[in-house]
Amino acid sequence: MEKVFRYIEDHADMYLDWLIEACNQPSVSAQNRGMVEMKELVKRFLNMINVEVEEITTDGYPIIYGELEEGHNKTLTFYNHYDVQPEDPIDHWKSPPFEASIREGKIFARGVADNKGNLIARICAVHAYQQIYGKVPINLKFIFEGEEEVGSPHLEFFAKEHPNKLKTNGIIWEGGSREVESKRPHIGLGVKGICYVELTCKGADMDLHSSEAAIIENPAWRLIWALSTLKNEQEEILIEGFYDDIVPLSDLDKKFIGSMIYDEEATKKLYGISKFLKNVSGDALKESLTADPTCTICGIESGYIGEGSKTVLPSIARVKLDFRLVPNQSPEKIAQLLRNHLDKHGFTDIEIKQAHGLHPFNTDPNHPFVNTVLKSMDEVYQEPPVILRNLAGSSPMYKMLKNTNIPAVQIGVANLQSNYHAPNENIFIDDYIQGIKVTAAVINNFR
Amino acid sequence: MEKVFRYIEDHADMYLDWLIEACNQPSVSAQNRGMVEMKELVKRFLNMINVEVEEITTDGYPIIYGELEEGHNKTLTFYNHYDVQPEDPIDHWKSPPFEASIREGKIFARGVADNKGNLIARICAVHAYQQIYGKVPINLKFIFEGEEEVGSPHLEFFAKEHPNKLKTNGIIWEGGSREVESKRPHIGLGVKGICYVELTCKGADMDLHSSEAAIIENPAWRLIWALSTLKNEQEEILIEGFYDDIVPLSDLDKKFIGSMIYDEEATKKLYGISKFLKNVSGDALKESLTADPTCTICGIESGYIGEGSKTVLPSIARVKLDFRLVPNQSPEKIAQLLRNHLDKHGFTDIEIKQAHGLHPFNTDPNHPFVNTVLKSMDEVYQEPPVILRNLAGSSPMYKMLKNTNIPAVQIGVANLQSNYHAPNENIFIDDYIQGIKVTAAVINNFR
Repeated sequence: MEKVFRYIEDHADMYLDWLIEACNQPSVSAQNRGMVEMKELVKRFLNMINVEVEEITTDGYPIIYGELEEGHNKTLTFYNHYDVQPEDPIDHWKSPPFEASIREGKIFARGVADNKGNLIARICAVHAYQQIYGKVPINLKFIFEGEEEVGSPHLEFFAKEHPNKLKTNGIIWEGGSREVESKRPHIGLGVKGICYVELTCKGADMDLHSSEAAIIENPAWRLIWALSTLKNEQEEILIEGFYDDIVPLSDLDKKFIGSMIYDEEATKKLYGISKFLKNVSGDALKESLTADPTCTICGIESGYIGEGSKTVLPSIARVKLDFRLVPNQSPEKIAQLLRNHLDKHGFTDIEIKQAHGLHPFNTDPNHPFVNTVLKSMDEVYQEPPVILRNLAGSSPMYKMLKNTNIPAVQIGVANLQSNYHAPNENIFIDDYIQGIKVTAAVINNFR
Repeated sequence: MEKVFRYIEDHADMYLDWLIEACNQPSVSAQNRGMVEMKELVKRFLNMINVEVEEITTDGYPIIYGELEEGHNKTLTFYNHYDVQPEDPIDHWKSPPFEASIREGKIFARGVADNKGNLIARICAVHAYQQIYGKVPINLKFIFEGEEEVGSPHLEFFAKEHPNKLKTNGIIWEGGSREVESKRPHIGLGVKGICYVELTCKGADMDLHSSEAAIIENPAWRLIWALSTLKNEQEEILIEGFYDDIVPLSDLDKKFIGSMIYDEEATKKLYGISKFLKNVSGDALKESLTADPTCTICGIESGYIGEGSKTVLPSIARVKLDFRLVPNQSPEKIAQLLRNHLDKHGFTDIEIKQAHGLHPFNTDPNHPFVNTVLKSMDEVYQEPPVILRNLAGSSPMYKMLKNTNIPAVQIGVANLQSNYHAPNENIFIDDYIQGIKVTAAVINNFR
């Protein structure tokens, strides 16, 4: 592999140019901007490394599917997406979001971290390997969707309609990142799920003068009372059955959680807080972050909240709740349990709108594929990896991989200050190059 | 009195012109618009009926104080204000707010109901009486402030600094109105008080990604938990001591409450509700409206409540609460009880800002002055009066009259659809003329 690594280093500028080319092509799925051009660009790159490309058409943007080599024992799949988030607020960018700019050892561009950096790095890794050995020692598959930033509405359909294309021994998923200070790379073995709902409680047809509150029901109060039955001050979620499906952490889970870095003092300082929830710290804190399901008020609104005092009896009250789910919980079931709970407590009038749901997904940390990736990381990085049982963000992994036992791990080229979905999105050039090497190492070690 | 009434009828057009002149002069205290001009206009009207006028200067707008006659047994005082609310939203007005417009037997203008109609009607009544009898049979005092719509910040100072000017046997206060269908006139014997507070709960210094909710405190949840300790689903306010000072209703109170008109079906239809709070109706409903203190969420806000789902852990949560207070409760004490309650329940971190407070004020329904006014109403109106122990809105009565035993009643020229503080504020011309007559009758009957 030394030769491959050296080739990558020697051709770092070329691989950087490839990434810049990809970044300079807008591909905003939410706004149907540049999607066709980006798809063609990705196909061209895949063709360059001899991948046979097929377009899977959907009602939305096509999934680019590709295969390389055949007849090997092992198959490795790369999941990535060629769409990016909108660049708003544009005023906060220091350089144009779709004109990659290099400053302080970093590349700045919309999508460079999420996830064009990873997508191109996978291609570069194959390319470099091919330059040295002629061909890769395993079968490769590429699943590059164009709708990840709008909720992957067709990924489930893809998995269902194309079971053979899904067949593989392991997936390198987008995601993963690197500590900025310690430089320790992260490997993710899964994501929490999410159940996002909006509750609405209605009173009179219009806002009334608050003197009427003596005789007219206030929907804000009803919503407060309903919410107060959902979670208590000890942070226990009181919805009947909420915790039933949760699988206890294994010893290995706990070991991996123990490997996490969490700078408590820095976080406290950054966020301006004096303590963490329930006053936890150390391993208990890391365990909470990784393994606790949550019930969060993301937003609540009723009546008048502007300057001064307006004596109003509101006609409507709304709250947005986000439940982060851990392995074996399901968003559909949680939404149903919530409905049952509200009904049982007399809040049949409170309406639930399920905005979106994503199942948690976790790869068995004992799976040999995890070891292969860890070994590959060891070959590239000086720093020991941080093994994350659950990444903070959600991901459509479950949509594609449910009903399979395919292991999927997340490694990548971004870092913890990459500004995902935000202005001045960036990655370190060095992390990009190292990311190409790790991918090449996985290809080499997985045979 | 027939002669006085006839004079008023014969000079209705002139008295209407006086009102129109007053309405056409903007006097928005909140915006310091036209206040000097309006003050001069009011002084001119008072001079016309031979009132000796004195300007009581304050840090804000002056109080116009006047006296007429002396040496009689009885003194009657008129409290009114020469300022009005801003006219926003201007787009909703069918005619310009400061160009009085007559349509369908009504006068439309900002302030015509609140309370230039009453202010001018008091002057007209004196004028008509003087035309017939040369002079009035009692001493009259006029207290016309210019800051009622901005909270009467100097009324307490006036009462304290000028005890002799305050001295009187009874006050006709602004307020009062008339049913639109039944035409029954209202007489108010007091107002509920109000304690308006804003509670703020803070979390991290900035909004965070909601995945952090597993370890970072959510101020929205804390506020929900705090609120849920304030009032239960049975509408019982749980703040210790909240109900302690309340005086039970007397038989006369109950009789007066029984005289109230409340069209339950029409209200249900208008508001789109199927039942009243706690399912009450009949006298119990009227009693609740008149005599129950309240704790109302006027507004609550935290996090993101726009379109779609944003996974945010809010950094701050705020609620505006309005307590309507009944006789013998005090806003200062309620604010202190609230502080004690929150502290006792562990919410020492929740900040209370008291936005404003007004004490309740009630005149003893057995006071002979009440009977004099009721008798005067009988002489003018065909319809029996509705006696309201508490008007819905608040008023600075207590600020001026605390530490006195002066009775004050509210009668006036507006009606229940006069659009106080709202676009297209209006009164019926007929109610204005009848209001002049009632004032003249009180002057006559009070000697």
